[in-house]
Amino acid sequence: MNQHALQHIPDSSYCFPVSKSRMIIRLRTARNDAVKIWIVYESKYKIGESQKKKLMTKELTGSLFDYYSVTLDLTDTRLAYVFYIFDGKNYYYFSEDGLTESYDFSKGYYNFFQYPYINEADVLCRVDWLKDACFYQIFIDRFAIGDKEKNTDYITMKWGEIPGSKSFAGGDLKGIISKLDYIKELGCNALYLTPIFKAPSNHKYDIVDYFEVDEHFGNKEDLRNLITGLHERGMRIVLDAVFNHTSEHNEKFEDVVKNGAKSPYYEWFVIDGEFPTKEPLNYEVFAGCKYMPKWNTSNEKVQEYLISIALYYIKEFDIDGWRLDVSDEISHSFWRRFRKAVKSAKKDAVIIGENWHDASNYLRGDQYDSIMNYAFTKAALDYFAYNKMDATKTAEKLNDILARNTDTVNDMMMNLLDSHDTDRFFSEVSENREKLKAALCLLYMFPGAPSVFYGTECYTPGGYDPDCRRCMDWKAAGEDLDVKKLLRKLSDVRKKCAFEYSGTRIEVSEDGRILVVKRAGNGADAMLLINQTDKPGKYGDKEVKPMEYRLFADGGEI
Amino acid sequence: MNQHALQHIPDSSYCFPVSKSRMIIRLRTARNDAVKIWIVYESKYKIGESQKKKLMTKELTGSLFDYYSVTLDLTDTRLAYVFYIFDGKNYYYFSEDGLTESYDFSKGYYNFFQYPYINEADVLCRVDWLKDACFYQIFIDRFAIGDKEKNTDYITMKWGEIPGSKSFAGGDLKGIISKLDYIKELGCNALYLTPIFKAPSNHKYDIVDYFEVDEHFGNKEDLRNLITGLHERGMRIVLDAVFNHTSEHNEKFEDVVKNGAKSPYYEWFVIDGEFPTKEPLNYEVFAGCKYMPKWNTSNEKVQEYLISIALYYIKEFDIDGWRLDVSDEISHSFWRRFRKAVKSAKKDAVIIGENWHDASNYLRGDQYDSIMNYAFTKAALDYFAYNKMDATKTAEKLNDILARNTDTVNDMMMNLLDSHDTDRFFSEVSENREKLKAALCLLYMFPGAPSVFYGTECYTPGGYDPDCRRCMDWKAAGEDLDVKKLLRKLSDVRKKCAFEYSGTRIEVSEDGRILVVKRAGNGADAMLLINQTDKPGKYGDKEVKPMEYRLFADGGEI
Repeated sequence: MNQHALQHIPDSSYCFPVSKSRMIIRLRTARNDAVKIWIVYESKYKIGESQKKKLMTKELTGSLFDYYSVTLDLTDTRLAYVFYIFDGKNYYYFSEDGLTESYDFSKGYYNFFQYPYINEADVLCRVDWLKDACFYQIFIDRFAIGDKEKNTDYITMKWGEIPGSKSFAGGDLKGIISKLDYIKELGCNALYLTPIFKAPSNHKYDIVDYFEVDEHFGNKEDLRNLITGLHERGMRIVLDAVFNHTSEHNEKFEDVVKNGAKSPYYEWFVIDGEFPTKEPLNYEVFAGCKYMPKWNTSNEKVQEYLISIALYYIKEFDIDGWRLDVSDEISHSFWRRFRKAVKSAKKDAVIIGENWHDASNYLRGDQYDSIMNYAFTKAALDYFAYNKMDATKTAEKLNDILARNTDTVNDMMMNLLDSHDTDRFFSEVSENREKLKAALCLLYMFPGAPSVFYGTECYTPGGYDPDCRRCMDWKAAGEDLDVKKLLRKLSDVRKKCAFEYSGTRIEVSEDGRILVVKRAGNGADAMLLINQTDKPGKYGDKEVKPMEYRLFADGGEI
Repeated sequence: MNQHALQHIPDSSYCFPVSKSRMIIRLRTARNDAVKIWIVYESKYKIGESQKKKLMTKELTGSLFDYYSVTLDLTDTRLAYVFYIFDGKNYYYFSEDGLTESYDFSKGYYNFFQYPYINEADVLCRVDWLKDACFYQIFIDRFAIGDKEKNTDYITMKWGEIPGSKSFAGGDLKGIISKLDYIKELGCNALYLTPIFKAPSNHKYDIVDYFEVDEHFGNKEDLRNLITGLHERGMRIVLDAVFNHTSEHNEKFEDVVKNGAKSPYYEWFVIDGEFPTKEPLNYEVFAGCKYMPKWNTSNEKVQEYLISIALYYIKEFDIDGWRLDVSDEISHSFWRRFRKAVKSAKKDAVIIGENWHDASNYLRGDQYDSIMNYAFTKAALDYFAYNKMDATKTAEKLNDILARNTDTVNDMMMNLLDSHDTDRFFSEVSENREKLKAALCLLYMFPGAPSVFYGTECYTPGGYDPDCRRCMDWKAAGEDLDVKKLLRKLSDVRKKCAFEYSGTRIEVSEDGRILVVKRAGNGADAMLLINQTDKPGKYGDKEVKPMEYRLFADGGEI
């Protein structure tokens, strides 16, 4: 056995409860190193005398490792266990003390693995509506103008011009309301909106007043109408919580600018000096931007204030969740309080972090439900756009990404090809329509909820910010485009099958040319085959032409 | 490079802040696989353009792995980093995407490692007094009788007889008070007492009333006198928090027995039925004991009640911390609230969990400070008692244990050779006095705070519970025993040097016979050499006879 590769960490993505009596246990081995693996287990007070045994199955094959897993339904949830491994020649035990040829269960209390007890409060619950959720992400200033009577003095560009970083195009909430049927037609049933609160910029990530809807976008009545319109259509809405930083024009920061250390808000920020100064910069800001001072989210008063905002929009407007801007720079301490408050107010409100990296320490059930899955984004780019990974490496990579998190988190991931913070995927693949469509298939078939950036459905190109934030091309959007039909079909598959993570297999064809994604569960199954090579590929009896994809669901080809 | 062995997990014991501006970063490799490793790092918003580089040092050598580490002092704490590794032949980068020959920093935001920002609320602070703390653990009924006037009807055994599981010997708080100078003479400066609260059993883990001192042990005045006596002597006290379960005679459980599902306390327990029944057992209990029903620590009201107990003894009696009984079966959710409340009431109150296993998920700064280090206990047993590990394997094992946790946690561990829940170490080593003394040297020289079980200092033997809970042999304790002198000397070394974890090296002599523990820091150093073989061993110019040990500190041999 490759001992260096063996890994099991209790109370992590290797061992987690999914209900009050069900545990999922994973073991990592080097690839193809084990022939059979069993979990040997029992209640921790009994395992000294007798043990149960259950065969594990190979769940994921990553670039270096295999992941075996097993589901245990327990009457006594004080679980003690070790692994029993056959490598084709010898049998081994694997415990907290490593790999051994024998194992003394009578002294096991020192070195078995354990999940000591399933406490309900520690179980991460699925947000059920995510099962068939398809998000549509809107950058509001560039989506649609609905309010024809508003003061348009602030608008600095004509609709359709290439935007600069400070351009205002005039999109608003009424514009979104007018397009709800259009969005629903695409099969999308959830909106993720960039910030809507009072802020000077076009992006509104520099919020001056969290309790006001920005006048460029409309007012609270518009917000209420938008949400009513969504909920009437069975659709959901997730707003953008910018709690890492604020605007320099926020009254609390202005008070500190005026009164310095004497301000009651001085400790709401992180300032090295009596007064905040820009030259030299002596206060913490977001990403070097002096106009966006960082909140001190270690401060309990700041925590209470920000949580009051989160609760206000849940209680007053019935929003369905929060996407958390720059969430990785905010204290765990804050997110723990935030989660408790949000979930108490609305149990199925979703909490999605903006962590671009492995976020396991935020995804243990006490902070977020999931994150924007930029690791998926990168894998899709490397496969479809940069030719950095072939089908084999891509399958491995996608499995590596799934291995990072628990089943529950995998089912709640917000997967995306692009966003307001990246180049548009369509431009990354050199405006190759077939590549975009194949990538969308992967996006929809990957465990979690897909998020489609506005304009993707009409082949909108765009480089990095601000170019990715171009105005919606409503003329193109009105055309009978195959990508629109595809999105609709893909969402139909998701709705019909409502797959969960378990039952997912990502692998490669024997000829190495086809990336294979299989989903099964709820009495249905689906299979996606993608060929990104210039040669025909074959998986079983299915052929896939060069640079094409095929999607099968529910017994037929789609 | 052995890619399977490489491991780095951000925001874990591989990457953690120790202050508002200082991070410690670890990388795991296979043993002797790397020649040099650097961390390549910068603020996450700058690393695309330029990077800093710092050499890492080999910190720990475990059974399979080496652990390299580096300390970074940062002005901008938004840390992004990758590792740069030389294996003697080639140079590699190691990032979130694994091992590669080149690395594109301009796209690093997708796959560098990062610690996004040090938030003060997430930094685990050291409890300073643990630096030179030496605990003395007392099982109260068996330590000393101080109250000569009390009703002795409950006493069922003569002092010195072998106890049964239900024996009462009569030890009490006044008895402890009368022995404070004795304990201080041993060099111990902190007490850990098994539970003191109203409970029918001799062990008091079946608490009926948390707000009363058990009448067998005394009263609140005695508790106050004990704590005053301790604090006057510069000593501390940690009490036993039995928050996993209670007694069936607790009034809240009795109310449920009487009123069933109608009781306001019904949901304070976990009951499968309208009324709790013993046959068949339909409510959750501790370890199969029907007289100890388990609290539902997922219930917020239970959480509030138990926390009110913890605060009462801190605020009213000024205790110095809590040891948490069966803490691993209690919800994380509870411990998070508990920590916040306890640390708000007394910042340097210590929180020590009873987790026998790797407890990393409880030791992230939001729950406990440390645990009772039974992994250390097991290593000491395997080395000194069971001959399961030689010096080499023991050094590796001890390093494996240190690698589990952050520096801060390692410094706060409560290390022990035995307790009321194990066989006495002296009996495990077949009453070999030299082995016990050598093991005590290791206990005191290992990072963390040693805990000595009462009677160890006078060679008290004892098997598993109840035999390990024999009466204190005050005649033997009054003798001029070398083990008592040793404990005093060891505590003097700890006090004088006040070592921290950093500066610890655990290794083996070239001849494989000597276990070497070195400590350095605070301008002092110390070295322990243990030979558990039947041949003489040599480390540098120091010889150690078969089955002997030598301890050097502060320039001389002790």
